[in-house]
Amino acid sequence: MPERTSWVPVAPDCDWSLQNLPYGIFSTKEDSNPRVGVAIGDSIVDLAALQDAGLLSGQLLGGATCFRQASARGGPTLNAFMQLGLPVWEETRGILTRLLASEEGALRDSSAKRRSCLVAQRDATMHIPAQIPNYTDFNASREHASAVGTMFRGPENALQPNWLHLPIGYHGRASSIVCSGTPVRRPWGQVRAPGADTPLWQPSAAVDFELEMGFFIGPANVFGAPLSLEKANDAIFGYVLVNDWSARDLQAWEYVPLGPFTSKNWATSISPWVVSSAALAPFRVAAPHQSPMPPAYLRSSPEELYNYGIELEVDIVTSRQVAGGERAVADAVTRTRMDTLYWTPAQMAAHHTVSGCLLLPGDLLASGTISSEGPLGAGCLLEATRNGKQRLPLPNTGASRAWLEDGDTVVMRGHCQGDGYRVGFGECRAKLLPALDIACL
Amino acid sequence: MPERTSWVPVAPDCDWSLQNLPYGIFSTKEDSNPRVGVAIGDSIVDLAALQDAGLLSGQLLGGATCFRQASARGGPTLNAFMQLGLPVWEETRGILTRLLASEEGALRDSSAKRRSCLVAQRDATMHIPAQIPNYTDFNASREHASAVGTMFRGPENALQPNWLHLPIGYHGRASSIVCSGTPVRRPWGQVRAPGADTPLWQPSAAVDFELEMGFFIGPANVFGAPLSLEKANDAIFGYVLVNDWSARDLQAWEYVPLGPFTSKNWATSISPWVVSSAALAPFRVAAPHQSPMPPAYLRSSPEELYNYGIELEVDIVTSRQVAGGERAVADAVTRTRMDTLYWTPAQMAAHHTVSGCLLLPGDLLASGTISSEGPLGAGCLLEATRNGKQRLPLPNTGASRAWLEDGDTVVMRGHCQGDGYRVGFGECRAKLLPALDIACL
Repeated sequence: MPERTSWVPVAPDCDWSLQNLPYGIFSTKEDSNPRVGVAIGDSIVDLAALQDAGLLSGQLLGGATCFRQASARGGPTLNAFMQLGLPVWEETRGILTRLLASEEGALRDSSAKRRSCLVAQRDATMHIPAQIPNYTDFNASREHASAVGTMFRGPENALQPNWLHLPIGYHGRASSIVCSGTPVRRPWGQVRAPGADTPLWQPSAAVDFELEMGFFIGPANVFGAPLSLEKANDAIFGYVLVNDWSARDLQAWEYVPLGPFTSKNWATSISPWVVSSAALAPFRVAAPHQSPMPPAYLRSSPEELYNYGIELEVDIVTSRQVAGGERAVADAVTRTRMDTLYWTPAQMAAHHTVSGCLLLPGDLLASGTISSEGPLGAGCLLEATRNGKQRLPLPNTGASRAWLEDGDTVVMRGHCQGDGYRVGFGECRAKLLPALDIACL
Repeated sequence: MPERTSWVPVAPDCDWSLQNLPYGIFSTKEDSNPRVGVAIGDSIVDLAALQDAGLLSGQLLGGATCFRQASARGGPTLNAFMQLGLPVWEETRGILTRLLASEEGALRDSSAKRRSCLVAQRDATMHIPAQIPNYTDFNASREHASAVGTMFRGPENALQPNWLHLPIGYHGRASSIVCSGTPVRRPWGQVRAPGADTPLWQPSAAVDFELEMGFFIGPANVFGAPLSLEKANDAIFGYVLVNDWSARDLQAWEYVPLGPFTSKNWATSISPWVVSSAALAPFRVAAPHQSPMPPAYLRSSPEELYNYGIELEVDIVTSRQVAGGERAVADAVTRTRMDTLYWTPAQMAAHHTVSGCLLLPGDLLASGTISSEGPLGAGCLLEATRNGKQRLPLPNTGASRAWLEDGDTVVMRGHCQGDGYRVGFGECRAKLLPALDIACL
């Protein structure tokens, strides 16, 4: 059966197919109120406008105000919709899929309704999709953990003793999560030079990106009660690209014994469009065989243990002087896949709550750096440059990098390739600004 | 000059003197809406009612709605007031101090206004004082870090190389912070027995309390810009008692290399009344001499480097069978002081933001376990029982503890002793419930 198509034109390599329908928060010059939209082709469907036009009502969704509700930090976010849970997400997706399919005329044939409900993406500014109550970062890629472990402890001790028994994670900093497009600033911090007794307070000289997949949680558990792996799968609303910026020199000095702190808490960038678990369902890939067998709360039937076949890439974009000015030049630095992860998102969420820890709607969990075997398989520079020792060539720019330099823009992209269509994530893009001058501190 | 007194009766050993005036969120049977109150003697002053009565208006405070404003998670919290900043906090404290002082009749002499504005504490239920956007826990007690370090690495390596150069901290779990009085549940998790290859999934057998001081942040910095130590002092709204519950067996297995996770994220209890920095100002104690000298961003003039002379205590309350039923029996397990901390709260906040990490109004930072020399100086059982090896006697109960047992109630208290008055914190109290039955998981 051929895949359904939309009456909204969608190019074959466009991330925003009828099969995708990701949720985001946008505003326009004409209406600066951030609001909930769904991307398709070159357009955004305004869901509040769709409700006003009588085209978005369902038995469960009813007259829900979740597409206009204000958050504590100003402006609408997806939190209220995330909070409604799987049956409402399914119903909403069903309505939108029907409404945008080629054969359906309710919106297609009314120029007034199209005018009020459709916005060109080029006219929209995207905002952070959720007010994120809590952020947790895992370390779920065996390739990444092994490569970094080998670098610091040798191949025999590449993985820590606990690594194969549980998804290692730590609490990140929710307040420093910013939307793609927001520049980030090279952080100051404490660095101890090799052999030195005393650390120096200086701008980090080892700023790195980390390519990760993040996932947003809907209704999950209550305080004190673990979430089962099966329920965890149903509690995941959707996915975004994550760049978990890291300052490796700060990290090396501070992380024993309580983990990364200032090395990570200065910025985390996420892509603006949240691709739903439903859109990704056709791209499920069975998790790798886990041996030793993890404890019962991390086990399930094979169909509950999956990652997704998401192709992931990172470019570093730099400026090159050309006759008459500057030109942006992109160099590929990472090419990997999400389904190389050892632990699945549901296992991460189940482990997070094994203690009874409360997950809240809008919480963001991230996979940790995703690396795979092969050329450009490393999901961060720490791994690609062997802790800065082997510079990574940027052939198009005619330069190389041990770590990121001021002015570098890191661009992450991801997509699943269907038969004639894509389910993509767009971009997670941010420029690294120079450190603040000490006179400003 | 004798200290000012209030027309509201305040016993000399009462925590809620005219000099204290802590802020909290309360409700009553008659009015179940949580609202902002200030404790004095056996009473609570309802600040919204005080505004309605025309007794709480200032040039800066104006008609602020911060005493009634709803939070995202339901009900008012102190966040909106915290967000207004030091000048408004000072003005409000000035108005309240005048209004409640012996010589002032505006509220004292109107039985109608007293009836609408004063509530008996025994009729009130206290709620969590803030919707906490982010929670960070430090490890700022040299006595605690040294004692634990000696236990695990011997006296030569008691402190990690970084410990004297920066306040070690990690991001905690904001969603699991609960108000004093809320029972907490023994967590499940992974534990590896000594010598075993494989961990078991089981209820923690090493549940511990950690006695800490927490502090709430008001307006602080912007994304990407550090907060200076001097500005950090002004950004601290006030203090609460914190019990950072810990599962030591889970912690030992999981914490390398990214720090504590499920061992800490299941519950953190805080006391309901926030004692303002202004109320604590008379009890400032110069920080201990710091050698080696920390980097410039952690240095300041002596008057900016202070902790507080807060006497702290922990009791374990158990039930003893007596003729005709059960009786609660309390045993002292910790007696220490907040001013034994090596790092000051402002140093913790300045270090937190050295990277540009954004602090938000309502964020909670905590000191880490506060231990001191001397009998009962240990602020947790890990230290008091030498990792469970030496049981701690509970003489009144006629029992002992390696770790907490199901049904134990941990009660923390703290106060500063003035000349004839106290500035106290009340209690942080919570009972440990048994782990969930596996059938419920």
